[in-house]
Amino acid sequence: MRPRRFTVGRSEDAIHPDTMRAALAEFLATALFVFAAEGSLLSLDKLYKDTTTAGGLVVVAVAHAFALMVAVSVAFNISGGHVNPAVTFGALLGGRISLIRAVFYWAAQILGAIVATALLRITTGGMRPLGFSLASGVSEWHALLLEIIMTFGLMYTFYATALDPKRGYLGTIAPLAVGFIVGANILSGAPFDGAGMNPARVFGVALVGWRWSHHWLYWVGPFIGAGLAGLIYEFLLIQPETAPHTHQPLAPEDY
Amino acid sequence: MRPRRFTVGRSEDAIHPDTMRAALAEFLATALFVFAAEGSLLSLDKLYKDTTTAGGLVVVAVAHAFALMVAVSVAFNISGGHVNPAVTFGALLGGRISLIRAVFYWAAQILGAIVATALLRITTGGMRPLGFSLASGVSEWHALLLEIIMTFGLMYTFYATALDPKRGYLGTIAPLAVGFIVGANILSGAPFDGAGMNPARVFGVALVGWRWSHHWLYWVGPFIGAGLAGLIYEFLLIQPETAPHTHQPLAPEDY
Amino acid sequence: MRPRRFTVGRSEDAIHPDTMRAALAEFLATALFVFAAEGSLLSLDKLYKDTTTAGGLVVVAVAHAFALMVAVSVAFNISGGHVNPAVTFGALLGGRISLIRAVFYWAAQILGAIVATALLRITTGGMRPLGFSLASGVSEWHALLLEIIMTFGLMYTFYATALDPKRGYLGTIAPLAVGFIVGANILSGAPFDGAGMNPARVFGVALVGWRWSHHWLYWVGPFIGAGLAGLIYEFLLIQPETAPHTHQPLAPEDY
Amino acid sequence: MRPRRFTVGRSEDAIHPDTMRAALAEFLATALFVFAAEGSLLSLDKLYKDTTTAGGLVVVAVAHAFALMVAVSVAFNISGGHVNPAVTFGALLGGRISLIRAVFYWAAQILGAIVATALLRITTGGMRPLGFSLASGVSEWHALLLEIIMTFGLMYTFYATALDPKRGYLGTIAPLAVGFIVGANILSGAPFDGAGMNPARVFGVALVGWRWSHHWLYWVGPFIGAGLAGLIYEFLLIQPETAPHTHQPLAPEDY
Repeated sequence: MRPRRFTVGRSEDAIHPDTMRAALAEFLATALFVFAAEGSLLSLDKLYKDTTTAGGLVVVAVAHAFALMVAVSVAFNISGGHVNPAVTFGALLGGRISLIRAVFYWAAQILGAIVATALLRITTGGMRPLGFSLASGVSEWHALLLEIIMTFGLMYTFYATALDPKRGYLGTIAPLAVGFIVGANILSGAPFDGAGMNPARVFGVALVGWRWSHHWLYWVGPFIGAGLAGLIYEFLLIQPETAPHTHQPLAPEDY
Repeated sequence: MRPRRFTVGRSEDAIHPDTMRAALAEFLATALFVFAAEGSLLSLDKLYKDTTTAGGLVVVAVAHAFALMVAVSVAFNISGGHVNPAVTFGALLGGRISLIRAVFYWAAQILGAIVATALLRITTGGMRPLGFSLASGVSEWHALLLEIIMTFGLMYTFYATALDPKRGYLGTIAPLAVGFIVGANILSGAPFDGAGMNPARVFGVALVGWRWSHHWLYWVGPFIGAGLAGLIYEFLLIQPETAPHTHQPLAPEDY
Repeated sequence: MRPRRFTVGRSEDAIHPDTMRAALAEFLATALFVFAAEGSLLSLDKLYKDTTTAGGLVVVAVAHAFALMVAVSVAFNISGGHVNPAVTFGALLGGRISLIRAVFYWAAQILGAIVATALLRITTGGMRPLGFSLASGVSEWHALLLEIIMTFGLMYTFYATALDPKRGYLGTIAPLAVGFIVGANILSGAPFDGAGMNPARVFGVALVGWRWSHHWLYWVGPFIGAGLAGLIYEFLLIQPETAPHTHQPLAPEDY
Repeated sequence: MRPRRFTVGRSEDAIHPDTMRAALAEFLATALFVFAAEGSLLSLDKLYKDTTTAGGLVVVAVAHAFALMVAVSVAFNISGGHVNPAVTFGALLGGRISLIRAVFYWAAQILGAIVATALLRITTGGMRPLGFSLASGVSEWHALLLEIIMTFGLMYTFYATALDPKRGYLGTIAPLAVGFIVGANILSGAPFDGAGMNPARVFGVALVGWRWSHHWLYWVGPFIGAGLAGLIYEFLLIQPETAPHTHQPLAPEDY
């Protein structure tokens, strides 16, 4: 196989049915995910319990884990199941998707998040989405570092279970792994900065709820984190196949 | 393969052993699901905690997710694991099941829900099932839209992981995906309208508990949502195989 | 294949290494399961929160679901992963295990439960195991019916995902399905009678804690439920293969 | 296959690219796991709820289960997904990894835990990690026994689902099983001694938080438990293949 590298793509791919189908899959999957994930926060609000109890944190984390597992599943075979502009960015840097296709993905993901959040505003009888904010004692740089680390984890997981050509049967549980890392990150990160990890999701909520404080770091953090993870996995962890190398592979009994 | 389309089916299939076996599987799976799902609500009631705390919401959502995952699993190979009249309706519109067979499924699912709810009334020493109702500020149209969206998500998930001929190893986690989308939807929808998504379940509870308020939308919403999802997936997202088309498929390295 | 029927087995199988290995696997798996499952109840006690809040119920249900999923996994390939005398009984009635082998399984499961509960007594610094009891308003007959239904669900799930020769890739998620049905049943049944479903588990707890109230129904209920499920699945739901039959199988496009 | 036995390994393997890649995978996976797992404890602290409510216990257990499932997944194909020095020790005793390779794994795991805990100190704005301690009434010997038993369970699970050559499709759910056993053990063990099970994790937390009370038992317990499990599984439960034996294997219909 040719070594992977960043590719732009051919313009005629832009209107190829496969690209259209993939974009539609990303749109619907992202909408599904954001509807259930954001909806869980509004649910807690409706129950007059805020999200700052342990029980509330579990509700939010489980809703995200479950919804994202489903979203990745339903888009997996058609678009690869990114559901997240940062994941698409990491795949782009690793050479696993062309820039033209990535642009379509980004448009579909952002649109899906906006549509889902808008629908939520209607179904909940007009409740304004809760936004992402920083807890006391957490500066913008802390939050940026947190977003980088959490999204690094998400992208690394996606790469290892969904993109690595040698993933084998790990591909079957890729949706679970992606859902679970987000669930775990929410349990550890949400009380500090809301645990965004997904610029489309944060953007949709910010737009419909018109809350833009610190919005930049919920784009910059995930893109840096996912980009790093994509580069690290693609060029350090994926085992080279075709290039002849001077070391003999380890024999199994020496493992 | 012939293009899928709505089919009625042959009358002699009605008494075919395979149809009988499928109907029995749907009956038992739906009964299993409703018993555990509805039972969790009665459990919370018994503990003198209502379902309006975050902890209670997690109990209900996890019980539904787990029980539905199991129900889809145990019926998957025999009947396809619908467990839900709306899912059967969506499969019907997509041409994946014949009308005659669907009628048997509907009968089995509704009967299973009634039997399970009746058994629960006995085992709990006579507790009356809690029904589905609308929270304050949520009109019937909000709830209808919510049911449409939530069941759209459920049907779309079922289609992508269980019906799509190209689902590959996604079929292994189809039960998990279906259970999880319902769990996520409960976390985001239950405080607003009870999150029905399944007319059989709602009907069984309404019959045994004799609560019929707004009952119509728990049928109309899911059928519309599932029908939409079935049509969208079948005719927009499934990749055509046999029809010759003018575009060349994208080569892998251009992905 | 020869039709399945109840078999006693040959006496020389009793000391066959495969039977010994299977018994050891059942012993260790049951011990693992009971240690974590019972331990979660003592944990809640230690935290000075009883098990009658929604949060406590989630702790117990999740501990059981997780621990049982693991127990079935680790014994699956060696003994079939029964971990439960009622499951072994259901498999026996369905002709899927010989009586001699079943006796060894029962001994191993009961011993594993006793050892685990005894170890818990030590590691917790002497805490007495909480037993199984009936809530107010729940008579012995209600509880018996509940145990029958819950264990029917467990055995039916095990049969469909682990024993059915046509289970296909469902076998991969069999441990998950079994763990989840128990988790769901605990959420719906525990506040009423403790949700035993497993005579070995209940016996170990009863012995080490010396609590024997209503003990009989935690044996009779599960055995009846599992036996019914085994017979129903084996003789009504499993598709006959070798016997010639007068009906033509349904063609796929008529499904 | 040659019978398994403890092997040292050849010195030139130490600088083999495969060993470097495996060490990097272990480093990143352990860092991912510890970041999310320890982070969940700090989250609870930030919410002004301690970890001694049922809801808090669920947060911690679910965060650990999810994060460990992901960590094992992402390292599974490259290093085997140990993520835990005790697991590597058990694999070493069972002859499934050479000593030289194990030393690299240990270094990578410990380093990963330290880096993750240090990063957490930064992102949380300086919060000091909560350490592992013993509850009242729990002596060091109780805790040591608890650590032995819990890590025995973890290693046994890992062996059965990930190392056993005959694991078949169980390998697909190995990450889930490992995550779940740790989650279940946390629900049953954390209120007593913190449920360490992983010397790297405990060491990282102890170093960055400078809390060393009873630190020895969080190394000795897991190593003993995992070592026992490795020996028991490898030499008692794995079915011999090549050695001729005097017993005829059981025929399937006698199962």
